[in-house]
Amino acid sequence: MERIVDMVKIKVMVLNTRKEFQMIKITEDVRSFVEESGIQNGLAAVITAHTTTGIMVNEGLTCVETDIEETLERLIPKDAPYAHAHFLPSYGATGSNSPSHLKSMLSGNSCMFVVQDGKLVSGDAQDVYFTEFDGPKSRKVYIEIIGE
Amino acid sequence: MERIVDMVKIKVMVLNTRKEFQMIKITEDVRSFVEESGIQNGLAAVITAHTTTGIMVNEGLTCVETDIEETLERLIPKDAPYAHAHFLPSYGATGSNSPSHLKSMLSGNSCMFVVQDGKLVSGDAQDVYFTEFDGPKSRKVYIEIIGE
Amino acid sequence: MERIVDMVKIKVMVLNTRKEFQMIKITEDVRSFVEESGIQNGLAAVITAHTTTGIMVNEGLTCVETDIEETLERLIPKDAPYAHAHFLPSYGATGSNSPSHLKSMLSGNSCMFVVQDGKLVSGDAQDVYFTEFDGPKSRKVYIEIIGE
Repeated sequence: MERIVDMVKIKVMVLNTRKEFQMIKITEDVRSFVEESGIQNGLAAVITAHTTTGIMVNEGLTCVETDIEETLERLIPKDAPYAHAHFLPSYGATGSNSPSHLKSMLSGNSCMFVVQDGKLVSGDAQDVYFTEFDGPKSRKVYIEIIGE
Repeated sequence: MERIVDMVKIKVMVLNTRKEFQMIKITEDVRSFVEESGIQNGLAAVITAHTTTGIMVNEGLTCVETDIEETLERLIPKDAPYAHAHFLPSYGATGSNSPSHLKSMLSGNSCMFVVQDGKLVSGDAQDVYFTEFDGPKSRKVYIEIIGE
Repeated sequence: MERIVDMVKIKVMVLNTRKEFQMIKITEDVRSFVEESGIQNGLAAVITAHTTTGIMVNEGLTCVETDIEETLERLIPKDAPYAHAHFLPSYGATGSNSPSHLKSMLSGNSCMFVVQDGKLVSGDAQDVYFTEFDGPKSRKVYIEIIGE
């Protein structure tokens, strides 16, 4: 039984969001970490540590970002009656961010890409977004490269 | 060409659901399996074997569960006209669970987490849910730990 | 520090779609690639290279495909006012495919399965779909098997 080292590289990024809804492109962070990792072939995974944020892959255009924001707002309206909107002893406050939890469900909380020849493999239009649904807050995102 | 053993650990969980819609927290199962696996650094993947169930990561509060149930019901109403609602010879019955297939599309059917220093890495609010959309049924969920 | 080879196998599939919306079953391609890979235990990942397509796991029935198409159309209507629908100098054209980007957000752009004993592990009803939301186009999908 043999073990190899250095087939897994993990990075945690801290992102301080400034708005309630904010899409932050982290494509270059993922790309750089793949290149620094020394891993030639494998998978790159991007995973948020939170339940009111999302990880999405989409085209890096501000008009697409606007359409994503407005569509999530339309599908998960802020003013609907949510069960979470009551006093929570564990919070010491009223749960006011149910729409953020529900947007997270629709957007997903992770993404993955192929790593080949030491590079991130992604389509020309593919950007990786960390998306804040309940900011401003300090957030953590994990990037992991696993392979050989 | 060298091969290592024990870099992959796979577990199948059987869950017997009791209701049509049911969210079952499996966070502790995933966490325990990571710790038993002996894998120090890698990825943990959770994958359902079904097309009318979901795997979600969200905050483990019953009010959030209620909002998820009601939101999926609102986005995918039970009484809409679905093409699947006709007699299917391969079933020997009428397809009545189209909303369950569609909820599965919105919720996703897998999730993943970082494994570091032999532990599952997850945010304080992150729980892993197996979600039944077409119960009661006997269901299978795979947990895989891959790494070194 | 030891490195192993042949724990990662990557395949790119080219799919030429023929319609604006089209669901293409690629389950057998994924299954065959797992068997050819020689990898006994690990993960199989399927990832699209595009932002106006999806990767979904659902039951392989044409009536379910119809319900998926109509539901995505209902949730993301073609005739809503989208910010992306303006002249984009980088395109040299008007962005007309915002609904396709938004459908991709809801459907997800990757999926994964367990690989065990050299086989893809999937439930009886689980098919893997590449889904075109902005065709006809030539598209790329990556299949990666990682394991031991």
